[in-house]
Amino acid sequence: MQWKSDIKAAAERIVGHVQKTPVMTVTGFGLDYPVELKLEHTQHTGSFKARGAFNTLLSCDVPAAGVVAASGGNHGAAAAHAARALGYPAKIFVPEMAGPSKIALIEGIGADLTVVPGEYANALALAQTYEADTGAMQIHAYDAPATVVGQGTCFAEWDAQGLQADTVLIAVGGGGLIAGALAWFQGARKVVAVEPETSCALNAALKAGEPVDVSVSGVAANALGARRIGDICFGLAQGMQSVLVNDDAITEAQQVVWREHRQLVEPAGATALAALMSGAYVPEPGEKVAVLVCGGNIAPDPLAT
Amino acid sequence: MQWKSDIKAAAERIVGHVQKTPVMTVTGFGLDYPVELKLEHTQHTGSFKARGAFNTLLSCDVPAAGVVAASGGNHGAAAAHAARALGYPAKIFVPEMAGPSKIALIEGIGADLTVVPGEYANALALAQTYEADTGAMQIHAYDAPATVVGQGTCFAEWDAQGLQADTVLIAVGGGGLIAGALAWFQGARKVVAVEPETSCALNAALKAGEPVDVSVSGVAANALGARRIGDICFGLAQGMQSVLVNDDAITEAQQVVWREHRQLVEPAGATALAALMSGAYVPEPGEKVAVLVCGGNIAPDPLAT
Repeated sequence: MQWKSDIKAAAERIVGHVQKTPVMTVTGFGLDYPVELKLEHTQHTGSFKARGAFNTLLSCDVPAAGVVAASGGNHGAAAAHAARALGYPAKIFVPEMAGPSKIALIEGIGADLTVVPGEYANALALAQTYEADTGAMQIHAYDAPATVVGQGTCFAEWDAQGLQADTVLIAVGGGGLIAGALAWFQGARKVVAVEPETSCALNAALKAGEPVDVSVSGVAANALGARRIGDICFGLAQGMQSVLVNDDAITEAQQVVWREHRQLVEPAGATALAALMSGAYVPEPGEKVAVLVCGGNIAPDPLAT
Repeated sequence: MQWKSDIKAAAERIVGHVQKTPVMTVTGFGLDYPVELKLEHTQHTGSFKARGAFNTLLSCDVPAAGVVAASGGNHGAAAAHAARALGYPAKIFVPEMAGPSKIALIEGIGADLTVVPGEYANALALAQTYEADTGAMQIHAYDAPATVVGQGTCFAEWDAQGLQADTVLIAVGGGGLIAGALAWFQGARKVVAVEPETSCALNAALKAGEPVDVSVSGVAANALGARRIGDICFGLAQGMQSVLVNDDAITEAQQVVWREHRQLVEPAGATALAALMSGAYVPEPGEKVAVLVCGGNIAPDPLAT
């Protein structure tokens, strides 16, 4: 598959529908080197997921039954938003662990939402049944080429904004975002996967030599809690570096990015930064690093009305 | 005074001490035209005030008695931060209306803080007494050339980042920030002053033909609640357009910038945007507009520990 040309085409396809997100270079976080940030949580619906959702809907014929998506919360919000923007009905399944902010966000967009007991995998099973029953088109949260290509536009955009880093750290759930990064950079920059110790589907797959089921829990589970890494991501991730962080490190990074730069992000949005702050990833002397800030749908919503 | 060359010199002086803040162009906010934003609330201590504070301390000899500042809160935090970074003792006076987040922020920096009954003007009176008694150097929150020149670096930076706007909207308290904008742009771009109806020192001064005392209250008073506009600002502001917004419009803009782009800002930080959303300022067809997002020290602190 010609990933780079597909990502370039996707970027042209979704322009005007997604936000070009800002970048900044920060010296702080208790680190003795600068870090480039891309504030992708400023994207529509609060995460990068809008890119894949719009790319999917704009690159195919959507059936009359509309769109269905399963999601820890962020992808569901993005799918609902993209469907509404383009005039399609949307059915969204999320697990209870999505939490009140993400549930309210999806409801506020006006999608038909079902909250499912359990975790993301349980929501996915119901979405697959709905797809089979109704003929609705599924927008997979991470393991579909159009999703991966859409997320890859984030990194094409960052390159065009003058990204300097040798190494880009990215939080991983099901692997759609990091697959997009690997597909775009093609080795031109090092990509490091960061996962919570308690939701580490990619790390476990790399160790096992194949995707395997993991249990998921912890502060970032409603964004990064995929039970099994996507096949597309696993195929692209061979040989890559994967590091783990614990919940305390994630919470500390979340605190620091708020205190130092007034960016209020959800735990998943601070997970990649946590790898630097905790020392889970230590750059070589002179190695330039960047962190993708992927999501901002924090609970509780500080301005909930 | 050679404002532009002074601002360029200040920008070189403070580089490395202040954050280069990100910019983004947004289509949304219920508006049918794009808006350029500069996210200056990502600055150290959560507002543009760090620019003026560092410029002041780096352009003079600080006495052994250190630094004193009076502030609604944001300038106090910036003065405390700059003093600590450069190794000087700092004494800060804020009014009670600064609120718990800003008081905790200044205490967390480690400054000697006194909370004063009343409003900013009461804190200023005590700071002036302290200055006379101790020989400490006062960093004025807005009505000193080094402060104005420091704030002006924000707009020099924005120009260098490719600002396209014909018109820049800026919230006004004592007038240090907008004076910096007027001093930098020198008519090359239109600058519009936005004040709360209940804290409108510049608007009142322009009507009266001279700085006059106003009463201050409302949701943004702990950042914009100056009783009288600064003389430097008043001198630069002759003939400029001044518009007012009410508290509901400010609160609505604060909600929308959070909902649409996950930027959690204090009321003052949403005041300039409120002028567009409320129709207090309506651009001409084709007129390109920009909004400076000036502060993010919201109360209560959503991550207070």
